[in-house]
Amino acid sequence: MNHESPFYICHFLRIKLQFRFNSEVHFIGMESNVYTDGEHSECSERTVQLKNPHLGNMDEDVLYHLALGSKSHDLEEMFGDVKFVCMGGTPSRMKTFAYHIMDVLDYKLPVGAVISEITNYRFSLYKVGPVLSISHGMGVPSIGILLHEIIKLLYHAKAKDPVIFRIGTSGGIGVESGTVVISDNAVDGLGNHFYEVAVLGKIVRRPATFNMELIEQLKSCVDPNDSYETVTGTTMCANDFYEGQGRLDGAICDHSENEKMEYLAQLRERGVVNIEMEATVFAALTHHTGIRAAIVCTTLIDRLQGDQVMVTKDQMEEWQRRPQKLVGEYIKRSLQKKL
Amino acid sequence: MNHESPFYICHFLRIKLQFRFNSEVHFIGMESNVYTDGEHSECSERTVQLKNPHLGNMDEDVLYHLALGSKSHDLEEMFGDVKFVCMGGTPSRMKTFAYHIMDVLDYKLPVGAVISEITNYRFSLYKVGPVLSISHGMGVPSIGILLHEIIKLLYHAKAKDPVIFRIGTSGGIGVESGTVVISDNAVDGLGNHFYEVAVLGKIVRRPATFNMELIEQLKSCVDPNDSYETVTGTTMCANDFYEGQGRLDGAICDHSENEKMEYLAQLRERGVVNIEMEATVFAALTHHTGIRAAIVCTTLIDRLQGDQVMVTKDQMEEWQRRPQKLVGEYIKRSLQKKL
Repeated sequence: MNHESPFYICHFLRIKLQFRFNSEVHFIGMESNVYTDGEHSECSERTVQLKNPHLGNMDEDVLYHLALGSKSHDLEEMFGDVKFVCMGGTPSRMKTFAYHIMDVLDYKLPVGAVISEITNYRFSLYKVGPVLSISHGMGVPSIGILLHEIIKLLYHAKAKDPVIFRIGTSGGIGVESGTVVISDNAVDGLGNHFYEVAVLGKIVRRPATFNMELIEQLKSCVDPNDSYETVTGTTMCANDFYEGQGRLDGAICDHSENEKMEYLAQLRERGVVNIEMEATVFAALTHHTGIRAAIVCTTLIDRLQGDQVMVTKDQMEEWQRRPQKLVGEYIKRSLQKKL
Repeated sequence: MNHESPFYICHFLRIKLQFRFNSEVHFIGMESNVYTDGEHSECSERTVQLKNPHLGNMDEDVLYHLALGSKSHDLEEMFGDVKFVCMGGTPSRMKTFAYHIMDVLDYKLPVGAVISEITNYRFSLYKVGPVLSISHGMGVPSIGILLHEIIKLLYHAKAKDPVIFRIGTSGGIGVESGTVVISDNAVDGLGNHFYEVAVLGKIVRRPATFNMELIEQLKSCVDPNDSYETVTGTTMCANDFYEGQGRLDGAICDHSENEKMEYLAQLRERGVVNIEMEATVFAALTHHTGIRAAIVCTTLIDRLQGDQVMVTKDQMEEWQRRPQKLVGEYIKRSLQKKL
């Protein structure tokens, strides 16, 4: 497949056709009813632009935490067709999501082949046709590293107008456990609407802003027959799971139950629907580089009821599938041009 | 094994003897020449004290990210003998370290048994006799979650006077790649000697302080025949790998090469020997709960020479073994009472 051509998706379809009628063509890509439906206006879509004047001068760019490099790997050949990057905390969730996307896209591999991690060094990365599924670990610094390297990967690969999703878990505030939250706003632990990072010894702030059009598109993909609610609201991004989220059950706690409840009530009044640990940097880095991105989380607990996450394995797995279902539906409709 | 007794280690030795002469005793612990050497004054050592008045009132404590609980598991039976907790970024490094400790302690399993992860849900946890080996992911929030839960685990298990190590990777400043750094000081990206976290909407600061006696003991374990240097110095803890460490090769960069070099020179003048992403919270949470703890990192690059980590796999593995060797030697001598 020649990804240098701006018409590589059209070219891809030609190869696909060859595969069907010419057994001598070695085609190791996907066979998907969904991906090939609809109009192919992707041919004219724009590539990712970095906000870094230095990278153009570099002979090689090693994406250290992905165990990939711009010289050691043909990133355009490997990832030029990527349209969606989906991130979540754990390797197992992102493996499950990769299989879910195989179902959604009716993605077929040759007999005897299975999907396999491209890397599991620091993050666990899967590719299913135009979808990357990758774990991001926990917390702002971890997903920050991944975002820098994924954005550079999309740039090197000349991916066309990609969308990045985080499909996560969170603690809800005043919503039933298992509710799905689409973040339309992100605040840090002090209520600031930005991502703050020390650069060369000074604080730099970047707006933590989501793409409202994408949020509306996601909302349009919600299944009205779902047995649970899907809501939009502000997501608080904490830098700690225990003290930083007002919990009383860490190894260290200096505050009282009353102080905690007062704080959670204040958050709710300000429109905070859930608390997780990645939203500000996710919104800020994608917004700053002009990449459409959204966060869809399930809530594992209502923090107004308690601190401890006590969920059965089956319940946890079912709740974690809910954001996957919504993002999968978005991907399917997006490829079918039905949004 | 009855871990409730303050004499459980002595008791353990009795069971061990039974194992040798009575085939009906089911002994699934370890056989180790090192662990059973020396005097057993551990019998009088102190247990971990939490800084949280609420935990005593809780019926159960679910260590969510470790997939363990104080009711669902007999934590005292499983972990009461833990003396050392070793943490490092990746699951593969901590698996390697578990096998290294098996060698160091001459730890034997029954024929047909192998060590296996106790959990790999969010962190990857191994146990080799008195040593836990566990991955912590990347960044302050990730290792912060692990520290809260490991400290609670040690408390529930009634572990006696445990020591926690981080065996990590880092970027060096003005030292040859592969140098081993024992941190004797930790600063954040603004040069502050504390860990800062937003609790109930307000900033809380905790001193990031190391145990100087432990550092001296570690230094005494350095092999004078090593082909590389082991140094002590200040470790800077950044919240980002790219901009936050002054790199020029992220997806976003607003500063120049000259500004970066000036900043790195300033850090060096202030005694910063290496940069990683976990030191402040590691030092602060262990210091606040009175647990001896130390960080030993290898350096993968000299940042005065460049930004990109371009190391062969073999070189990387050899460099990563260096902190493991030092901490392994400390553990061996500690169990032999030869420090």
